[in-house]
Amino acid sequence: MLTDATREKLKHVSTATLATALFKRGLRRQYLQDVHPLRFKGDNMVGPAYTLRYMPAREDLNPISVFQDRAHPQRKAVEECPPGAVMVIDSRRDARAASAGSILVTRLMVRGCAGIVTDGGFRDSPEIADLALPSYHHRPSAPTNLTIHQAIDINVPIGCGDAPVFPGDIVVGDGEGVIVIPAHLADEIADEATEMTAFEDFVTEKVREGRSILGLYPPTDEQSKIDFADWRARTGR
Amino acid sequence: MLTDATREKLKHVSTATLATALFKRGLRRQYLQDVHPLRFKGDNMVGPAYTLRYMPAREDLNPISVFQDRAHPQRKAVEECPPGAVMVIDSRRDARAASAGSILVTRLMVRGCAGIVTDGGFRDSPEIADLALPSYHHRPSAPTNLTIHQAIDINVPIGCGDAPVFPGDIVVGDGEGVIVIPAHLADEIADEATEMTAFEDFVTEKVREGRSILGLYPPTDEQSKIDFADWRARTGR
Amino acid sequence: MLTDATREKLKHVSTATLATALFKRGLRRQYLQDVHPLRFKGDNMVGPAYTLRYMPAREDLNPISVFQDRAHPQRKAVEECPPGAVMVIDSRRDARAASAGSILVTRLMVRGCAGIVTDGGFRDSPEIADLALPSYHHRPSAPTNLTIHQAIDINVPIGCGDAPVFPGDIVVGDGEGVIVIPAHLADEIADEATEMTAFEDFVTEKVREGRSILGLYPPTDEQSKIDFADWRARTGR
Amino acid sequence: MLTDATREKLKHVSTATLATALFKRGLRRQYLQDVHPLRFKGDNMVGPAYTLRYMPAREDLNPISVFQDRAHPQRKAVEECPPGAVMVIDSRRDARAASAGSILVTRLMVRGCAGIVTDGGFRDSPEIADLALPSYHHRPSAPTNLTIHQAIDINVPIGCGDAPVFPGDIVVGDGEGVIVIPAHLADEIADEATEMTAFEDFVTEKVREGRSILGLYPPTDEQSKIDFADWRARTGR
Amino acid sequence: MLTDATREKLKHVSTATLATALFKRGLRRQYLQDVHPLRFKGDNMVGPAYTLRYMPAREDLNPISVFQDRAHPQRKAVEECPPGAVMVIDSRRDARAASAGSILVTRLMVRGCAGIVTDGGFRDSPEIADLALPSYHHRPSAPTNLTIHQAIDINVPIGCGDAPVFPGDIVVGDGEGVIVIPAHLADEIADEATEMTAFEDFVTEKVREGRSILGLYPPTDEQSKIDFADWRARTGR
Amino acid sequence: MLTDATREKLKHVSTATLATALFKRGLRRQYLQDVHPLRFKGDNMVGPAYTLRYMPAREDLNPISVFQDRAHPQRKAVEECPPGAVMVIDSRRDARAASAGSILVTRLMVRGCAGIVTDGGFRDSPEIADLALPSYHHRPSAPTNLTIHQAIDINVPIGCGDAPVFPGDIVVGDGEGVIVIPAHLADEIADEATEMTAFEDFVTEKVREGRSILGLYPPTDEQSKIDFADWRARTGR
Repeated sequence: MLTDATREKLKHVSTATLATALFKRGLRRQYLQDVHPLRFKGDNMVGPAYTLRYMPAREDLNPISVFQDRAHPQRKAVEECPPGAVMVIDSRRDARAASAGSILVTRLMVRGCAGIVTDGGFRDSPEIADLALPSYHHRPSAPTNLTIHQAIDINVPIGCGDAPVFPGDIVVGDGEGVIVIPAHLADEIADEATEMTAFEDFVTEKVREGRSILGLYPPTDEQSKIDFADWRARTGR
Repeated sequence: MLTDATREKLKHVSTATLATALFKRGLRRQYLQDVHPLRFKGDNMVGPAYTLRYMPAREDLNPISVFQDRAHPQRKAVEECPPGAVMVIDSRRDARAASAGSILVTRLMVRGCAGIVTDGGFRDSPEIADLALPSYHHRPSAPTNLTIHQAIDINVPIGCGDAPVFPGDIVVGDGEGVIVIPAHLADEIADEATEMTAFEDFVTEKVREGRSILGLYPPTDEQSKIDFADWRARTGR
Repeated sequence: MLTDATREKLKHVSTATLATALFKRGLRRQYLQDVHPLRFKGDNMVGPAYTLRYMPAREDLNPISVFQDRAHPQRKAVEECPPGAVMVIDSRRDARAASAGSILVTRLMVRGCAGIVTDGGFRDSPEIADLALPSYHHRPSAPTNLTIHQAIDINVPIGCGDAPVFPGDIVVGDGEGVIVIPAHLADEIADEATEMTAFEDFVTEKVREGRSILGLYPPTDEQSKIDFADWRARTGR
Repeated sequence: MLTDATREKLKHVSTATLATALFKRGLRRQYLQDVHPLRFKGDNMVGPAYTLRYMPAREDLNPISVFQDRAHPQRKAVEECPPGAVMVIDSRRDARAASAGSILVTRLMVRGCAGIVTDGGFRDSPEIADLALPSYHHRPSAPTNLTIHQAIDINVPIGCGDAPVFPGDIVVGDGEGVIVIPAHLADEIADEATEMTAFEDFVTEKVREGRSILGLYPPTDEQSKIDFADWRARTGR
Repeated sequence: MLTDATREKLKHVSTATLATALFKRGLRRQYLQDVHPLRFKGDNMVGPAYTLRYMPAREDLNPISVFQDRAHPQRKAVEECPPGAVMVIDSRRDARAASAGSILVTRLMVRGCAGIVTDGGFRDSPEIADLALPSYHHRPSAPTNLTIHQAIDINVPIGCGDAPVFPGDIVVGDGEGVIVIPAHLADEIADEATEMTAFEDFVTEKVREGRSILGLYPPTDEQSKIDFADWRARTGR
Repeated sequence: MLTDATREKLKHVSTATLATALFKRGLRRQYLQDVHPLRFKGDNMVGPAYTLRYMPAREDLNPISVFQDRAHPQRKAVEECPPGAVMVIDSRRDARAASAGSILVTRLMVRGCAGIVTDGGFRDSPEIADLALPSYHHRPSAPTNLTIHQAIDINVPIGCGDAPVFPGDIVVGDGEGVIVIPAHLADEIADEATEMTAFEDFVTEKVREGRSILGLYPPTDEQSKIDFADWRARTGR
């Protein structure tokens, strides 16, 4: 369960900081490789993962008429992805055809979903970039998904960008990319990353003022710890 | 022959819509893979393909002095590419050296060509991005083309971005990428894509208003068809 | 030694022009492949290379605590890279984890360094893109460098983006990418590129006016040489 | 259902001939890309697919102790793959760690399975190559599968070597590689490939005797058809 | 023109030695990358290049029936490749479908051609490996060439394995791979490589006897030159 | 220090078993990716690493004449690599030119070295495959190393096949590939792997006799442990 408090905290930390917090726990592969924001609008994407798995398309099973089936997994997923959730698509890192297009992504947005991520590509990418919904992919790709992808499973564990994604894991996207936090760690990672962010903001301020990183980052000098305590007191963080 | 009517229609449809129209005819590889606009300026690139084929450069045949030959295929192509045509370069998907630079691209622009595409990279890419001429490549690449490419053939069938390109095929580029329409299909594809675009615009409007995609996209509900007819009547499309 | 005069000249020529000047001397691999500016701000990056070599990280040698060591090569390098120099990192073209983050890059900026380059990726890339310091990488990458990289050597000859980089080589970055000039050639390359740039500017002007590139670029027509001489006289270049 | 008759026919045709028979039906992606026999022993592998899906391993879920769980999908699959079936593993084309090792493959062999295929790699590959069981992979890979793979699903539709594989599809391997025949087509494809093989054997004999391929392959000359009829009568095929 | 004397010499030198002789002349890209012998039988492949160019297949132009056309470039090439020549196919380094199969390769063999090379893959590769004709490819590939390739040009300059190949260039294959010698250099390269081979054989003998490579390879010690002269006198080479 | 006892033990365990022993200690990247034996002759390669680092070649620094310098790092390394050691070359996973050829490898063999490994390719690979010295590379590559590599450092920490290699680490190669054991762990890993190998041999015997892997591998059934104890007593292992 993603609490409002944790969601709020995760809105204000970076994927880089989260990656370090996960690294400290031995989790080194939670960042999605080669997945980029279509256009970052300043607010982090945060939500539990709702997954969609694609397999290679067999031509006879994937004529354009398959979408007339209301139970087609891609269409079903778009209607059932819970509000607040992030749809994460396993496209086998293959962007030669689209994972989805602007109409489906618009529907997700209208339905109140928190974002959409694929390790393939989106079509209508300029329109998707304009939407308020956060979206992440590898690169634009105009061909319909049927060209090489067949949607086969909803809400099963998948890989995306070489990272493991389990339904319900907490997905966070910023201007850099996307990271996946195992569900049971979300609260503690959010707390730790918030603390780390305060410290990093303090360090950045000091570095801008001309201080060396030695003894400051990490704060191996006692004075650095004292200064940080002062800074927190002063800034209220 | 690209008629003015077809050119005009193709100005107002997306490569994604065109890809679907081609997919319905069994053509799945007409979209150029890994080829991106240098900077999209809002108007589609449309024109018949005029092709240039590169082979790997042999060092002794490619000193800088080759450009003193007025018959050098790259320079010849730049002077002979017809106004209204799109120059498409087969760079064997290799962007380690440039396919062309800003001076040649400027010349194409001044001569009234419709655009330039390579599956390699351009040099002087910031300057080319500033030009009015639509341009598409894989990534910026400063080294002169002689470093790894030798221009060898003009206006022969080529591959570009893993797509087949025959001279005279109709090339369309938008903010997403580039697609190639076999010449004999251009008129019917332009018509069909125009119809599809009207429907997609209608669907997008309905989805934004909150309607589900089920029964609407595709319009398996009778009501969707009625609503679309109304919309067309109302909007004049 | 990078003289002020040469630095100034290199501020006003492009990596494409430099690549051609190096090509004429048989140097075909000085451009860094797949390395892009985070955000180009209009001024070329110019400075001698100060290098940092990464090797694959062995997990037991790379816990987060290594940064408590003031002699850690990455941190040492950030404090010792000379003002005016460009830090060039050999990340083995592997961007699965970061080469550095915004705090270290800020420190380099405050210390007066001229720029930072990696053939991997930076974390905190949106923040780094905002800094005044020129920065170049392959793609954003949030994971801490310890995830796959171990900093092992400072200021040794390295590869970066498949180009050879010796400490002291002159590194130039523009809106396109980064090129490395062997130290002993810097002055003559800067001179030659400045001359070439004047000629290219002249040619661009003529092409914009409608002149053919044949006989003009290169200037095999005698008239082209005369016109260029006139242009130089007129423009004072 | 794979009948004995069809199994027998598929024992004596090549993946190349099968690929052509599938191509004629519009199926172009049934051959597994980059998957090779460890050591072909002269008999085709034939059997229905029993699939195993791997996802990227999350470190905390994949300590060495997971194999103590008798329900671990990899171990369960090895005990439950039906005799006569071919185990096909979706390793996401990632051979950086093993898909399985010699003990599990030996168990499959003893249990009467027909073969094992992965688009990753096997460990203990020299021992596996020595086994009577046909085996196919991309390349040898010593690290335990836990290093990067987590077995997650048994007998679901998967991708393998970029080909779609549904449980029950008929998998055929020869000295060249592996191809997948959709279950409902197995009988007719086996028949057609058997006919094609007879013709190809005839053609090969004629070509060896010095005949041109023109008019013979395909048999556009009437005489070629007559000669083939004679050959069939004479050879009893 | 490939003389008998040069052909004979090239039968007895390695692609490695030839690569060095070409390197000395500034030719660094004549070795075909990622192209391997199907099964080397001890005799070098030597012959002038007869080229075949493939482009990406457009589905509507490549039904199985195209081979009924006697003028189909692939079939035509197989019947017209001159005896003694090596057929070199530009498959754009794409082995997802075959470049040719055993029947065509058998026909080339029977017609007296010297070998066949592709930077893609062959189908029926076990049968081709058994033929007396030398053959080189990237990897086995069962799908018919129509799946992704369309034969489009005969005997034009091409790229193969990233090397430039002009019709008539001399192609040499050994147990390692394939190299291309520009036609006008064939005689002198054959002579030089023959001399180099004698010296390398001498050096190998000395190294096996325990001598250091320093001063011997290259022969910077005067004694090495004397010993080599003795060795030549003694061995008659 | 590699003791005789440890060397002997490592002669009789597989890289797969060693990978698992290292995995248990959190070391997941010690296996060299994409590195294969030229021809395995039945005996493991075992020895401490002696490293050689290559950087991208700058053309002016790498004419053929560089080998006249006795201090050239490649030649020096071949004369100084200690008997019993394994030369490991960091070729940046680039096999477009050779890492070394048969003469140098023969010299290493004669000098009593234990083997040679590169993550690039060897030239004269058929001759090297015939030598008694164990050798491992990615693929054959005829061009001289000067074409793209410059030997720059001897016995520094390197990457090879994406694995970290420190001078003195223990390198083991078998019929599958190569793995690197951190020096300080060599004795305990050799002991543990020897124990594991005994158990795996026992398991293999039981599986061949028809026993299920469940409860046996790992031995979660008490009976499995008893049977193994009996087997050890009986076989003296």
